[in-house]
Amino acid sequence: MKTIDFWFSIGSTYTYLSVRRLPLIKKDNIVTFNWCPFSVRKLMMEMNNVPFTPPEKKVKSDYMWRDISRRADNYNLSPIIPAPYPLKNFDLANQIAVLGINEGWCEEYVDRTYFYWFEKGIEAGSDECIDKVSADMKLNPNDVITRANSKEIIDQYNSQTDKARELGIFGSPTFINNNEIFWGDDRLEDAIKW
Amino acid sequence: MKTIDFWFSIGSTYTYLSVRRLPLIKKDNIVTFNWCPFSVRKLMMEMNNVPFTPPEKKVKSDYMWRDISRRADNYNLSPIIPAPYPLKNFDLANQIAVLGINEGWCEEYVDRTYFYWFEKGIEAGSDECIDKVSADMKLNPNDVITRANSKEIIDQYNSQTDKARELGIFGSPTFINNNEIFWGDDRLEDAIKW
Repeated sequence: MKTIDFWFSIGSTYTYLSVRRLPLIKKDNIVTFNWCPFSVRKLMMEMNNVPFTPPEKKVKSDYMWRDISRRADNYNLSPIIPAPYPLKNFDLANQIAVLGINEGWCEEYVDRTYFYWFEKGIEAGSDECIDKVSADMKLNPNDVITRANSKEIIDQYNSQTDKARELGIFGSPTFINNNEIFWGDDRLEDAIKW
Repeated sequence: MKTIDFWFSIGSTYTYLSVRRLPLIKKDNIVTFNWCPFSVRKLMMEMNNVPFTPPEKKVKSDYMWRDISRRADNYNLSPIIPAPYPLKNFDLANQIAVLGINEGWCEEYVDRTYFYWFEKGIEAGSDECIDKVSADMKLNPNDVITRANSKEIIDQYNSQTDKARELGIFGSPTFINNNEIFWGDDRLEDAIKW
């Protein structure tokens, strides 16, 4: 079976669409995904690539939410738009995903986090969100946060981000199939076909 | 028949894909396009939205060309990648398109211009490109340039850009179907379905 690397940051808005539909694609048994959390924020800052928050970009930001809403409709997803944005605890949310890689629960954690963030309006990385996701997954939230803030996990998160930079990644979600890079949820089908 | 407003600037790279495939879509007789040239450069500068030229964005720029190349393959187009970019005579190229609206040859002019720019490597808006396009269309290039630089055409170009801003347009190509805005060549099918 084909394996596609799925590079993502919790905090990216369009990544919601990918995270919530990957499980359905996996069910078709054509392709599996290798989940790779990294800090897209760090790489965007290095590239002086400002996201959707400044006031002069409001028109573009409004369009982004409308576009996500339309595309979510096509996937039978029901987000509450706009979701809280940007994230205050961006790094923590992603460090927990890195911990989840090591412990085998990354995919479920990220899926649950985006569910609460986009479908219940509870900001990813917030105490409330981590509590809810931990309850669903029968994890201890304080223990998860402590371990996600350990030097070991932070180092691993940084080296994932270094690896993303070396691969030529600059946005989330990014799909890599056989060294070919596809950026954006709307390129997922192209990545699978490649 | 449905009419979709097609807002574009010559100078936008992804607009190549739309310009070159709209004639094929038109042939299917489902939809017609209302060609609306404007200055995306002016609106992007207002939004502090820097395009792909700064060196720190080289990774993103390289990806853009690769992405255009892959998508062109899917449409059976054969661009020479990268095309000369950015355009030195951006405004002139678009002012000629505005003149073409008034005189009924905008669509052919834009199609020919993108053909020479992307498929022959001749920069849009350059004397050489205007000469070649004019020859194909049996127009006098000097006369075209003089009239495209008239106050009347420049005013019309500026008011097209003002209208684009009012509509919430921030990029090229943009498709508007029944007040719904779709940005990007990769949203053309969604715009038609809307």
